Amino acid sequence: MTVTAAVVEPPYLAAFRSAVTSLLKEFLTRKAQAAAARSMPAEVTQTLQDFLLAGGKRLRPLLCMAGWQAGGGHSTPAPLLQVAASLEMFHAFCLIHDDVMDQSATRRGRPTVHRALAAQHAGNRGKGPADRLGTSAAILIGDLALTWADELLHTAGLTTGQLSRVLPVIDTMRTEVMYGQYLDVTAAGCPTADVERALRIVRYKTAKYTIERPLHTGAALNSASSAVREALSAYALPLGEAFQLRDDLLGVFGRPEVTGKPSLDDLREGKHTVLLALTTQRATGAQRALLEHLVGDPGLEDDAADRIREVLEATGARTSVESMIAMRHEQAMTALEDAPLPLAAAVTLRRIAALAVERAS
Amino acid sequence: MTVTAAVVEPPYLAAFRSAVTSLLKEFLTRKAQAAAARSMPAEVTQTLQDFLLAGGKRLRPLLCMAGWQAGGGHSTPAPLLQVAASLEMFHAFCLIHDDVMDQSATRRGRPTVHRALAAQHAGNRGKGPADRLGTSAAILIGDLALTWADELLHTAGLTTGQLSRVLPVIDTMRTEVMYGQYLDVTAAGCPTADVERALRIVRYKTAKYTIERPLHTGAALNSASSAVREALSAYALPLGEAFQLRDDLLGVFGRPEVTGKPSLDDLREGKHTVLLALTTQRATGAQRALLEHLVGDPGLEDDAADRIREVLEATGARTSVESMIAMRHEQAMTALEDAPLPLAAAVTLRRIAALAVERAS
Repeated sequence: MTVTAAVVEPPYLAAFRSAVTSLLKEFLTRKAQAAAARSMPAEVTQTLQDFLLAGGKRLRPLLCMAGWQAGGGHSTPAPLLQVAASLEMFHAFCLIHDDVMDQSATRRGRPTVHRALAAQHAGNRGKGPADRLGTSAAILIGDLALTWADELLHTAGLTTGQLSRVLPVIDTMRTEVMYGQYLDVTAAGCPTADVERALRIVRYKTAKYTIERPLHTGAALNSASSAVREALSAYALPLGEAFQLRDDLLGVFGRPEVTGKPSLDDLREGKHTVLLALTTQRATGAQRALLEHLVGDPGLEDDAADRIREVLEATGARTSVESMIAMRHEQAMTALEDAPLPLAAAVTLRRIAALAVERAS
Repeated sequence: MTVTAAVVEPPYLAAFRSAVTSLLKEFLTRKAQAAAARSMPAEVTQTLQDFLLAGGKRLRPLLCMAGWQAGGGHSTPAPLLQVAASLEMFHAFCLIHDDVMDQSATRRGRPTVHRALAAQHAGNRGKGPADRLGTSAAILIGDLALTWADELLHTAGLTTGQLSRVLPVIDTMRTEVMYGQYLDVTAAGCPTADVERALRIVRYKTAKYTIERPLHTGAALNSASSAVREALSAYALPLGEAFQLRDDLLGVFGRPEVTGKPSLDDLREGKHTVLLALTTQRATGAQRALLEHLVGDPGLEDDAADRIREVLEATGARTSVESMIAMRHEQAMTALEDAPLPLAAAVTLRRIAALAVERAS
């Protein structure tokens, strides 16, 4: 099996992706009806629906399905679909709150939720109060998405056995991603040469949350053996790291019209990424002074960002991160070849690996 | 049965309150140990524990117990205790996020979570970045509290039947409080004479969330009849409104050294309360101009607040709100007298009503 074999997308992936989207849409339509019946503002469900339907790779639902297949599952029964949708709803919660914390202006090529709500409620408020209102409303819509992720999960029609296996995985995943995000937020603004610390953030914030736990969730639906769970982890952790390292590169070098996100946010924020840690490690005195001066400057503009990008290139950090991605992708593929997994699971996982690493957005 | 009979506190209330606190402390100690084992920052659980142990009336846990008694339950079995603790953990989530949204400086007589974290991480950051970091960290600790409320709930050892009755109540409660808070946040800054709108916010944000749903949660543990559930609602909704109306009065006229909260926040925020709506309704032209000028001014100071307070008094709005509280308390007591409830439940509910309405903090 070669890596290139992974590029063709099996048709059931697209079908599953669109089934998840339909399920989320129907769920939110019911919530909108319930809200209307109580004269609650329609913008709450509308905003969440716009956000969920504006894009997204549905990576976590697909991984949940792959985990199910890894545990020997066939077809896509309704409870699996709903658990997968619940992961996507949870992810909407994460992104909405992340954008509030990062004060990001765009996501998926559109205004972020807090920005859209600030504009919607501006009325005759000043900019300051409108922005605060947008932030508060986005925090609440995020909280609702988390609550509704729960509701999707426990109305999925799982058996008692499935619930007792799935819930601890979900609890662990949630705690991990929040700690990972906490590490990320508290490290931002003071990037250092500490590559290990940057990798730790990657592991909790992304590798476990985005890849490993969705796989384990699907596997838990099927009471997969511990050998299968371990094989999934051996694939998931390097792939998840590769995914985040790609994200870090896209965050600085990506084209905003493709990524849907501004290419200055990570630098303005001073995110403690592996890319920046490696650069700091290798920088000359003058380069380091430039980094300290510009990285984390909330008013950073394009020309100054270009000067940082030159240093990321000149130190070879960008190339090194590309190698780290390739190495980890390779590692994930090797883990897959050695794994005791059904063919369907292996095919799905190979395709997902390509999606995660070779993307431009 | 007279209202004054309610004032004596049955000893099992204090015992239950402290059992809930111990359970939360033990749960967070386990979370702290798990975090330490993975070298995660200790301040996350420490901050949450400080918050939970700094005070709080444990009103929702007590109401959960009362609901259990209303359904015919005796003693306080471990699953009841843990579900009650889960409600308190959820409430910590609500308050931490509320304080972020309201940009409040103190709660329970101490710095709010976002303020405490901003101070802790100030380091050599400027005030702006430190404040943003405090806000982000508080959003995340709130999110964790919500996640851990879930974990407490589904590790409480409930039977399948109990879970299937309790979870829909919890889902409903969460959706209601978030919509209520959404109404509150979007109405702030533009207080009007619309008393009905203010009462609607009170109903969702407080009456259902604080009183009715915790009672229904406890009752659902016991598969209480619909007659019991309705009797609980007949008590809960007027009492919950009284509770919030008292809160609104304390928010403006309370003594900060007793309430633990600053007495300017509600006025600076321009919260759309019944108190302000009534005042606006009855204000003379000059009074109304004063309100429009001062209410919602984020820089409001004590002397200007006193001028608003004078208008709240002069229009008779303060007195009217006091009457509304008394009327609703009375209504709750009448509902209780007519209710088909076991004696223990009635005793607990009467005491809680006194706690909720006659408080100074």
